[in-house]
Amino acid sequence: MLALRLIERKRDGGRIEPGEWRALSLAYAAGHVPDYQMAALLMACFLRGLDAGETSALTDAMLASGATLDLSHLRQPRIDKHSTGGVGDKVSLVLAPLVASLGVAVPMMSGRGLGHTGGTLDKLESIPGFRTDLSLAEARAQIERLGCALIGQTAEIAPTDRKLYALRDATATVEAIPLIAASIMSKKLAEGLTGLVLDVKRGSGAFLPDLERGLELARTMIRLGADRGCPVVALLTAMDRPLGRACGNALEVEEAIATLKGEGPPDLLRVTYALGAEMLVLGGLAPTAEAAQPMLERAIASGLAAEKLQAIIEAQGGNPGVVDDPAVLPQALACELFTAPRRGVVARVEPRAVGRGIIALGGGRTRMEDEVDPTVGFVISAKPGDWVDAGEPLATIFARDHAGIEAGRAALHQAIRIGEEAEPPLPLISHRVSAAGVEPYAP
Amino acid sequence: MLALRLIERKRDGGRIEPGEWRALSLAYAAGHVPDYQMAALLMACFLRGLDAGETSALTDAMLASGATLDLSHLRQPRIDKHSTGGVGDKVSLVLAPLVASLGVAVPMMSGRGLGHTGGTLDKLESIPGFRTDLSLAEARAQIERLGCALIGQTAEIAPTDRKLYALRDATATVEAIPLIAASIMSKKLAEGLTGLVLDVKRGSGAFLPDLERGLELARTMIRLGADRGCPVVALLTAMDRPLGRACGNALEVEEAIATLKGEGPPDLLRVTYALGAEMLVLGGLAPTAEAAQPMLERAIASGLAAEKLQAIIEAQGGNPGVVDDPAVLPQALACELFTAPRRGVVARVEPRAVGRGIIALGGGRTRMEDEVDPTVGFVISAKPGDWVDAGEPLATIFARDHAGIEAGRAALHQAIRIGEEAEPPLPLISHRVSAAGVEPYAP
Repeated sequence: MLALRLIERKRDGGRIEPGEWRALSLAYAAGHVPDYQMAALLMACFLRGLDAGETSALTDAMLASGATLDLSHLRQPRIDKHSTGGVGDKVSLVLAPLVASLGVAVPMMSGRGLGHTGGTLDKLESIPGFRTDLSLAEARAQIERLGCALIGQTAEIAPTDRKLYALRDATATVEAIPLIAASIMSKKLAEGLTGLVLDVKRGSGAFLPDLERGLELARTMIRLGADRGCPVVALLTAMDRPLGRACGNALEVEEAIATLKGEGPPDLLRVTYALGAEMLVLGGLAPTAEAAQPMLERAIASGLAAEKLQAIIEAQGGNPGVVDDPAVLPQALACELFTAPRRGVVARVEPRAVGRGIIALGGGRTRMEDEVDPTVGFVISAKPGDWVDAGEPLATIFARDHAGIEAGRAALHQAIRIGEEAEPPLPLISHRVSAAGVEPYAP
Repeated sequence: MLALRLIERKRDGGRIEPGEWRALSLAYAAGHVPDYQMAALLMACFLRGLDAGETSALTDAMLASGATLDLSHLRQPRIDKHSTGGVGDKVSLVLAPLVASLGVAVPMMSGRGLGHTGGTLDKLESIPGFRTDLSLAEARAQIERLGCALIGQTAEIAPTDRKLYALRDATATVEAIPLIAASIMSKKLAEGLTGLVLDVKRGSGAFLPDLERGLELARTMIRLGADRGCPVVALLTAMDRPLGRACGNALEVEEAIATLKGEGPPDLLRVTYALGAEMLVLGGLAPTAEAAQPMLERAIASGLAAEKLQAIIEAQGGNPGVVDDPAVLPQALACELFTAPRRGVVARVEPRAVGRGIIALGGGRTRMEDEVDPTVGFVISAKPGDWVDAGEPLATIFARDHAGIEAGRAALHQAIRIGEEAEPPLPLISHRVSAAGVEPYAP
C-alpha cells in the first residue's frame, strides 16, 4: 500500500518525505515492491520532478541500501572523478594513476559502456587478466597499499540504485536530472570520498547535450555533496567530437598508456590536467589549479604516473607488460585507412555516429547483456577545423573482418563531414561550477 | 524496443499511432512487453493524456485482442447499461430483466466490487448456485432464449484490457478518462451492442466525483460509440448518498427483487425508469422517454419483469425460489438497529463511509483477491433532509458477529451526520448527454 500511495502523491505533484524514500528503497531492494509499481513511480518522478529535499532523501536512501567503502582511517585525501560519458573518453585511465602517484587516494568505481558511449570497465578488461570485480575488502586493501583501485559497482554498494538503474533504462526514465544526480552521488558517497570532481560533457555526443541541463546536473550534485561534507567541483567539457583519437576499448587503453608516457593527444591531456588539478586542489595537495598543473606534468615526465598504472594493473591481475608494450593488448584482425573523399575542411566528427560505428563493429552494447569485442574501433586523427586533401588519411578502422571494415567505413562516412567551412567547435573546457557558482573556465 | 520507443514518445507529449497501439496490445497480451514497461507507459498516458484518435485506437486495439459476442443474427435491439459505480447501486439487477421483459436483448457484462463501491457480480453470486462465469457460447445461447445474460468479463473478451486494468489498479493510473473510456468501451463493443446507456455517477461517493469530469467521460464514450455505430446516451445521477436503502450484496439483491415486485424505494425506481426509458428509445421500442415510462411501469405491475429475473436466475444455476422468498438468500447472523444519537435533520449520508463500513464488515474488497461475505451490510432508511428524533431508527446493521455490529455502528456514526440543517443534496438525475450535446435532465 505504501508504494501505491506514493505513486498517487507524486502523480499529483506532491512530495515524498525522507522516511518514505527510505522505506521504499528498502522494500524495493528486498523485492517487496514490484518493478511495475516502481516503473510507474519513476515516470511520475520524471514528469513531475523531485525537489532538492527529495533528491537528497533519495540519495541517502539508495546509499543506505548497501555497504560503503570505509577509508576514513587513511591520511590521504580521497578524491574521485566522475564523467557523464562520451566517445573516446579514456580520461579515467590516465587520471586515476596520475593523481594517485601524487598522493591522492582514488577509490574509482566505474561503469560499462551502453549505447553510443564507452565505459571504463570495458576498457580496463581489454588488458589480459585485469579483474574489475574486486570485493570491497580487496579494493580497500589495494587503496591502502597503492592509493588507487579501479573497480565496478559491487553488489554490496547501493543495491537499490543498481536495480533502479536497470529499470530506468527499460522504461525511458533515465534522463531526469534528480534521478541521475541521486544515482551517481549514492555510489560516489559510498566510496567514502573527501571530494569529487565531475566532468560534465556537453554537445551532440553527450548524455545531456544541452549546456543548461549539464549545469543543472552539476549544481544538483554539488548541493548533494555539500550537504554531506563532500565538496564537488564540475568542469563542463566538449563532447561535440570524440576526445583524443582512439575510440574502442583496447585502442583507448593504448592511447591512455601513451598519454601517461607523455605522448598523448593535446585535447585529452588538457582535459586530464584540468580535472587532475581540481582533484589536487580539493585534496589540499596544491593551493591552486595553476600550481597543480606542473605537478601533474612532472608526474608524467618522471614516469611515476605510468609506474602507478603498472602497479595497479599488476595488483588487479592484469598483465603489467602492457605499459611497456601495447602489443600485449588483443589486436584487431583487420584494419584499413579511411581517407578523405574530397578536399575541404573537416566540418564535423559526430561522436554519436562514431559510437554507433563501434557498436556496429561489435565493440559496444545496445543491451547490458551484450558481449563486447575489445579489439575493434577507430583511431580518428581528423579534428573539426582541419583542412584535408582528397585521399588524405582521416582515420584507421580496426575490425574483426572485411564486413566489419565495411561497417566501419559506412559509420565514418556518416560521422566525418567534409565541407567548405567548419562549424565552430565547442570550447574544450567551457565552465567551472563549484559551491560558489558557475564561472567561465579560464585556467 | 517498440515499447521503449512508445514510452519515450508519450513521455515527451507525443502521439501513439493506431498501428502502434495494435502492436503494443498484442505484444502485451502475449507477454512480450513486461508489466514494468506498460506501467511506465500508463503513467505517461495519465500525465500527458491521449487525444481522441489515440483513445479510439486504444479501444480498437483492446477490443481486437479478444473475442466478441456475435449477436448480429438477433432481431431484437441489443442494449446494455453501464454504471461508473457507487454504493447501493443495484440498478443493473432490476433494469436488465425489466428491459429484457420488454423485448430488448441485454448482454450484460458486469464487474466485481473494489474499494468502497459494490459490483453486480458479487451481488448476483449471493443467490445460492448462481453462476456468473458463463462462456461466450453459453451467454449467447441464453440471450437467444431469454433475451438476457448477466455475466462477468470472460477470459476471451478484451484480454489486454483485463491485464491493463489490474496493472492500472496497482499503479495509481485508474482515474484517467481516456483510459477509463477505452477500457469500458472495448468491453461493451465486444458485447455486439446496438446501443449503450451510461449511468455516470457524480458526487462524493462517485469514482469521478466532479461533474465536469463525469461529463468529459460521457462525451468521450459517446464519441467512441458514435464512430462505431453504437449510439451512447448518458445520464448523470447522484452519488452523494447511497442509492435506495440496501447496501451489501445479499441485501441489495433482496431490495432489487422487491423493486421488481413494485415495492422499491422511490430513488432507485426513478433512476431505473430513467435509464430503462433511454434503453427502450435507443432500441426503437418506444418513441420517447415519456412514452417508455408507462411500458416499464406495466412490466413491473404485471409481474413480467420479476418472472424474467426468475428465468435468468434459473438459467444461470441459481435458486429461482429467491424471487418469491428472499429468505433463500444467505442471512447475517447478527443484526441491530442504528438509531439517531440526537434530534435534528439528516445532513449527510456519506457513501464512501458506508462503503468502507461494508468492507469493515467483510462484505467488500480492498484487493481483488479478497473474499466477500454476501450477508453483511446496512439497510439505511434515513435520507438527507429527513427530520429525526433522538433514538429514532436510521438504519439496520447486518453483521457476522458482535464485533461486526460494533464496526458497523462506528461506520454509520461516520457516515450519517445529524445537524441543524441539511446540505442541499444533488439532483437525483441532473444531466442527459448524447451525441447532440449536454442538456439538463427534465423528463
